[in-house]
Amino acid sequence: MDLSIWYLMGAILVFFMQCGFAMVETGFTRAKNAGNIIMKNLMDFCIGTAVFVLLGYGIMNSENYFFGLIGMPEYQMFTDFYAFDWSNFFFQLVFCATAATIVSGAMAERTKFLAYCIYSGVISAVIYPIEAGWVWNGQGWLAQLGYVDFAGSSVIHMVGGLTALVGAWMLGPRLGKYTKQPDGKIKVNAIPGHSLTLGALGCFILWFCWYGFNGAAASDTAQLAQILGNTTLAPAVATICCMLFTWVRSGKPDVSMCLNASLAGLVGITAPCATVDALGAIIIGAVDGILVVLVVELLDFKLHVDDPVGAVAVHCANGIWGTLADGLFNTSSGLFYGGGLAHLCIQCLGVVVIGAYTVVTMFIVFKIIDKTIGLRVSPEEEIMGLDITEHALASAYADFLPAAPGTIGEECGTSVDLTHLTPVVLDDSHSIKHTESGMTKISIICREERFSVLRDAMASIGVTGMTVSRVMGCGAQMGKVGQYRGVKMSMHLLPKLQVDIVVAKVDPALVVAAAERALCTGTQGDGKIFVCPVEHAVKIRTGELDYDALQDDN
Amino acid sequence: MDLSIWYLMGAILVFFMQCGFAMVETGFTRAKNAGNIIMKNLMDFCIGTAVFVLLGYGIMNSENYFFGLIGMPEYQMFTDFYAFDWSNFFFQLVFCATAATIVSGAMAERTKFLAYCIYSGVISAVIYPIEAGWVWNGQGWLAQLGYVDFAGSSVIHMVGGLTALVGAWMLGPRLGKYTKQPDGKIKVNAIPGHSLTLGALGCFILWFCWYGFNGAAASDTAQLAQILGNTTLAPAVATICCMLFTWVRSGKPDVSMCLNASLAGLVGITAPCATVDALGAIIIGAVDGILVVLVVELLDFKLHVDDPVGAVAVHCANGIWGTLADGLFNTSSGLFYGGGLAHLCIQCLGVVVIGAYTVVTMFIVFKIIDKTIGLRVSPEEEIMGLDITEHALASAYADFLPAAPGTIGEECGTSVDLTHLTPVVLDDSHSIKHTESGMTKISIICREERFSVLRDAMASIGVTGMTVSRVMGCGAQMGKVGQYRGVKMSMHLLPKLQVDIVVAKVDPALVVAAAERALCTGTQGDGKIFVCPVEHAVKIRTGELDYDALQDDN
Amino acid sequence: MDLSIWYLMGAILVFFMQCGFAMVETGFTRAKNAGNIIMKNLMDFCIGTAVFVLLGYGIMNSENYFFGLIGMPEYQMFTDFYAFDWSNFFFQLVFCATAATIVSGAMAERTKFLAYCIYSGVISAVIYPIEAGWVWNGQGWLAQLGYVDFAGSSVIHMVGGLTALVGAWMLGPRLGKYTKQPDGKIKVNAIPGHSLTLGALGCFILWFCWYGFNGAAASDTAQLAQILGNTTLAPAVATICCMLFTWVRSGKPDVSMCLNASLAGLVGITAPCATVDALGAIIIGAVDGILVVLVVELLDFKLHVDDPVGAVAVHCANGIWGTLADGLFNTSSGLFYGGGLAHLCIQCLGVVVIGAYTVVTMFIVFKIIDKTIGLRVSPEEEIMGLDITEHALASAYADFLPAAPGTIGEECGTSVDLTHLTPVVLDDSHSIKHTESGMTKISIICREERFSVLRDAMASIGVTGMTVSRVMGCGAQMGKVGQYRGVKMSMHLLPKLQVDIVVAKVDPALVVAAAERALCTGTQGDGKIFVCPVEHAVKIRTGELDYDALQDDN
Repeated sequence: MDLSIWYLMGAILVFFMQCGFAMVETGFTRAKNAGNIIMKNLMDFCIGTAVFVLLGYGIMNSENYFFGLIGMPEYQMFTDFYAFDWSNFFFQLVFCATAATIVSGAMAERTKFLAYCIYSGVISAVIYPIEAGWVWNGQGWLAQLGYVDFAGSSVIHMVGGLTALVGAWMLGPRLGKYTKQPDGKIKVNAIPGHSLTLGALGCFILWFCWYGFNGAAASDTAQLAQILGNTTLAPAVATICCMLFTWVRSGKPDVSMCLNASLAGLVGITAPCATVDALGAIIIGAVDGILVVLVVELLDFKLHVDDPVGAVAVHCANGIWGTLADGLFNTSSGLFYGGGLAHLCIQCLGVVVIGAYTVVTMFIVFKIIDKTIGLRVSPEEEIMGLDITEHALASAYADFLPAAPGTIGEECGTSVDLTHLTPVVLDDSHSIKHTESGMTKISIICREERFSVLRDAMASIGVTGMTVSRVMGCGAQMGKVGQYRGVKMSMHLLPKLQVDIVVAKVDPALVVAAAERALCTGTQGDGKIFVCPVEHAVKIRTGELDYDALQDDN
Repeated sequence: MDLSIWYLMGAILVFFMQCGFAMVETGFTRAKNAGNIIMKNLMDFCIGTAVFVLLGYGIMNSENYFFGLIGMPEYQMFTDFYAFDWSNFFFQLVFCATAATIVSGAMAERTKFLAYCIYSGVISAVIYPIEAGWVWNGQGWLAQLGYVDFAGSSVIHMVGGLTALVGAWMLGPRLGKYTKQPDGKIKVNAIPGHSLTLGALGCFILWFCWYGFNGAAASDTAQLAQILGNTTLAPAVATICCMLFTWVRSGKPDVSMCLNASLAGLVGITAPCATVDALGAIIIGAVDGILVVLVVELLDFKLHVDDPVGAVAVHCANGIWGTLADGLFNTSSGLFYGGGLAHLCIQCLGVVVIGAYTVVTMFIVFKIIDKTIGLRVSPEEEIMGLDITEHALASAYADFLPAAPGTIGEECGTSVDLTHLTPVVLDDSHSIKHTESGMTKISIICREERFSVLRDAMASIGVTGMTVSRVMGCGAQMGKVGQYRGVKMSMHLLPKLQVDIVVAKVDPALVVAAAERALCTGTQGDGKIFVCPVEHAVKIRTGELDYDALQDDN
Repeated sequence: MDLSIWYLMGAILVFFMQCGFAMVETGFTRAKNAGNIIMKNLMDFCIGTAVFVLLGYGIMNSENYFFGLIGMPEYQMFTDFYAFDWSNFFFQLVFCATAATIVSGAMAERTKFLAYCIYSGVISAVIYPIEAGWVWNGQGWLAQLGYVDFAGSSVIHMVGGLTALVGAWMLGPRLGKYTKQPDGKIKVNAIPGHSLTLGALGCFILWFCWYGFNGAAASDTAQLAQILGNTTLAPAVATICCMLFTWVRSGKPDVSMCLNASLAGLVGITAPCATVDALGAIIIGAVDGILVVLVVELLDFKLHVDDPVGAVAVHCANGIWGTLADGLFNTSSGLFYGGGLAHLCIQCLGVVVIGAYTVVTMFIVFKIIDKTIGLRVSPEEEIMGLDITEHALASAYADFLPAAPGTIGEECGTSVDLTHLTPVVLDDSHSIKHTESGMTKISIICREERFSVLRDAMASIGVTGMTVSRVMGCGAQMGKVGQYRGVKMSMHLLPKLQVDIVVAKVDPALVVAAAERALCTGTQGDGKIFVCPVEHAVKIRTGELDYDALQDDN
């Protein structure tokens, strides 16, 4: 039956892998870089599309293919729109974009955005199309030799993974990843990501789309079904082996490693998905599941190359293994199936040549970028996070994270009139006064939505510093009662803000009076103010003490 | 080849756009309204299905179509189930639901849920089916004129976007979005969403599904492939242009704007996806990427219409542009392709008539809703969030947000016996006493899971108020050591609760004794209690001081 | 037309349901178990694949099928790879994995991981294949009787749901779910999940994939379209009915219940999707939407069986109803369509026999697991969460949750030289001294990234305890200004850490000096240190007071 529709459906699934990669890479890195990683994954595909149209597609797919090495771009898509083979173009485009996007995870959290855009353009325009043409353009020299890489273990994953390795090595590790100890040894620190669930979502999406990745080019329904079978067996076995391996070694089955193992199994079966049988797929998967753990550890503990998401272990190591495995398990020419060494040698040759080509060219590309615009952000930018420094994005979770700056209380846009404000006087006509030390701490528990009013009121009476935290308040008034799936919730606790202010120059009685005016709405839940003694204050930067420490004159 | 299966597959992808819209709209709004937005997107489709079955489908697709304007519902699906064209019904249904769902983002965070349900029913039952019939029922007057809107830039996106504009304008901005300053100028405040990653997930899902949206009605594989090509070129170019535009103007490439630009590029190519060539798609996309930024700013800074997710800019502006662009770039009849002005005029006519029809009818619909049940929630409800006020949902992230009320410590359902409780006596037989002020603050650092026991114990000795916050404690005992991807984590910090209680009437020694009994389990990590002086207390609502401030008699 | 490609596409969609289940179950449970649930869902599919290959597929699909009850495994996939029916295998595999994964939600948050892995292997290897063979192997005894379960309301959903019921009942409720009150009554507590948006994402993914689940086995395009129609009508109506039902009863439309209702509608229409007409689908859906609410409440308030995600109500109750409904609404043999009682009786017979078979076998399986390795984790493990206790995963959101242990400040790997450290001396040559009580509290507001340096410095001068919380600091220096969608944000607040240390033995002046040296970078934003009096301290575990309370000698 005609598979031309499936060919396009499969390619659409491959496009959706961009989403999977974005979720995996964001989930396994820190919240402060989430927007930056999303942006890199998005631009990867967009820039990749532009340069693949302008250059890459021609280099790879042209019928004018020279010496089995490189094609001459032809631009038929512009000159003869309706006769152009758009099916093939769309198919090749989405595969190309996958190779580029593998790299962003390994270089995450410290690469300049501009540098990444340039790298991304170069790999999609030139680096990938040349080597992909060798294998997938019928006139390519590796294709002519009988090299087998059905869906891209080497053409896409090894190339992406090696580029990731070169990039991560050249960038150096993230700050704090490896710390030199007094005894000269390197301590390896874990830097966990901010959302394992997003990472897992990405892995499930990738597995789903991989059926398109491996299957899109199937020649008939029976072959497609075999490919789907192999593309299920290998990752399932890889995941089980990884689970057992981590369980036995460290006493607990490791979740994020198992998610990586699923991807490793998929990468490994990508080259031989149409040429090995069920037993081959199972053995390939079993190796994948162990290999990914060993390579993650090799990079981390021995080579000290910092790859935040495990891209090198997943894509490079298993891409190489999958390609070589075809030389072993190919049912018509593999070593273990009586095919002798010929096919295995060709597989090795391809891996070595494509690998060497990738390492050399990408080294040059990254080196040029590094020497011109620079590859890595400054330590200050890295600590602050790339969201704010590269994209002026305060936080990808501005309304979510409790410590997100600047988003509290803006809703209540009104300001209070502070004229005729008199310091609070106690019953016995004594005002609230500073303690002996000349300093006082005023702790205010208030509604979150009044914060901006309080802040402005404090500023207008000369208070320049405060510390704000989210707390839960529990007073006499009861909160609105919520319910969850039909069950009433006992909501005794209500969200509040605690604002701590230490003053020396400013009269504490005035602070209390201003706070009261700013916060009083006359309804239950307005909050409380506590006044406590402070004995000393130190400004860390200058070492100034007490009164001086509280004057923010600069 | 027969595309009937692809027609249904494409429609299934269009259904999945509901998920994309839900994620985009939730991610780009605040956490306190997340459940409400999910609910609106869910009910959109469900209510839309019900009314489209009962009325909309007949109005739009009936063979009894009068004057090219409106059809007569026939209900063959009930009378002759097996002969009914279910393929066409399912296809039309999922497109209809898309038009309705566009609106929820622009009206987010302040619309009454009931009002939204009614609007949603009306647009799917009547408003959309009438104008969609003009274009997509072969007997429709615009179809007869040769109006081209292959997949719905105007029929769906412009209509959804204009409805969003009318709705957002009539609702007015969210509290705090625009604040009038003393000099009379309007200050525009940013109200960031709570999860850029969810928003990005939604955008990737939408792009993925858009291949179905634009391609489902393709007549053959070659045309489908061209559509997929155009549907990739336009958003890719739009995103690049938006990135460069925001980068040059404000110094940083804007992440959330670029995500919007991808959608803008998709909306723009929706009408002409089957009729323009690659160059046309690229130019259309380039305009989309700039247009979306300009319209977002126009609405925000000039018109002060508050559209939280940019629905008007994405769908309305680019829907119009995409439809008109077909008049310019249509390869057989576009102005720039030698087709003269005829086709462009018809496109303009369609845009103007459909646009005017939408604005007038939706204005009436929203006005009637506003005058009867009301369109907008009260300011109090808006500040508290629609999750709790409209759905009794305490929080969409109840177990996630640290300030989530009522979910702490319920696990430890036991209560302690407080009989024979004696105040704590110091070594030298002196009890813990109030300081000179007559007030004392007791700060308790304890295990989270004992909180409910502590709370009940405090209540039973007369303590009515407390402030609770999540802190990290670090004592002599070491936490359980975790590992992440094979690397041990140095877990010196353990999650704890800090409970602050200020008492005047209640004996602080009794508080300490009760807390000790409630919290002591005899194992390491039970926590500590600190007693500190407090000099004054103020109850904000009443202005009561010190002793009086701490009596929660109401 | 040939549907063989759609058959595989549909199966690929069914695979993606694994992602939907993972998201639903994770979102509706607590953050501390998120990694564990992801892992269970992942291993479900992987272990299921392995055992289905080794045993299950043969038992279910073998041509050597004995007495209509059980098949003899044949392993053609290993012996004759290219002739084996991989399409059928892949199709059967993904359905089998669905049955297994339904259970994990009901048993969430308290089941031992190893126990779950064993259960998962047994159901996919033996339990499911036997009963599925009865219905879907043409030689099965129920198939021979004319039993109708087109896509698995009973074969998959009822079986999964009943297994969930047996499992959840045998495990017992989560700690704190049901508390016995003094009057002997059971109080039902709500334990909300940590992310409604993830849960909703999962529901949308499930609905999307359900078109594959119900439609994959369609015999032609027209039947497929009818199935898609029914598979849309039932859940849409179910969701509307649930919304109205919860709205009328409790005054608010319940979000998470409506999401469950959509799934209930899908489960209900699964058996009869190809045999009922539109009216039948609507009525079935309407019942689903009410039934799911009633069964959730029955379990919670009457039976006190704790099912965190509503798996029993969704899959078991509606699976039974959907199967029986075919006996009522089947257009060729249903009771209401003139088919008499014969077909309904066969449907009842099937439900009773499959149900009894499932309950008995799964009871035995769970009992054996419980008596050998144990089914449930210890209360301590449950309170700490399964992520850390079962997988050594500190948190699925380690970098996200503010209270995540051990991940603060590791970036700044340097340590400071504390030699020649002298206590801070005040201007008048008096040192900072302990207050009368002999104890002092030092509150340090500092940059997050310097925390590890501070912690090490404190340890080296003998400070063993501290309390850390995330706060927002607002001093004279202004933060980096962010922007969101073109609008500048007024970022007055910057994230800071507050570290509270209470000392008795250690000289507070030394603490201040060490903190200053550890934290001072000489740039704005270094923070402040406050010294406050403390009157008493109590160590909860031992009851030690003041000086003794602060000596962490064990």
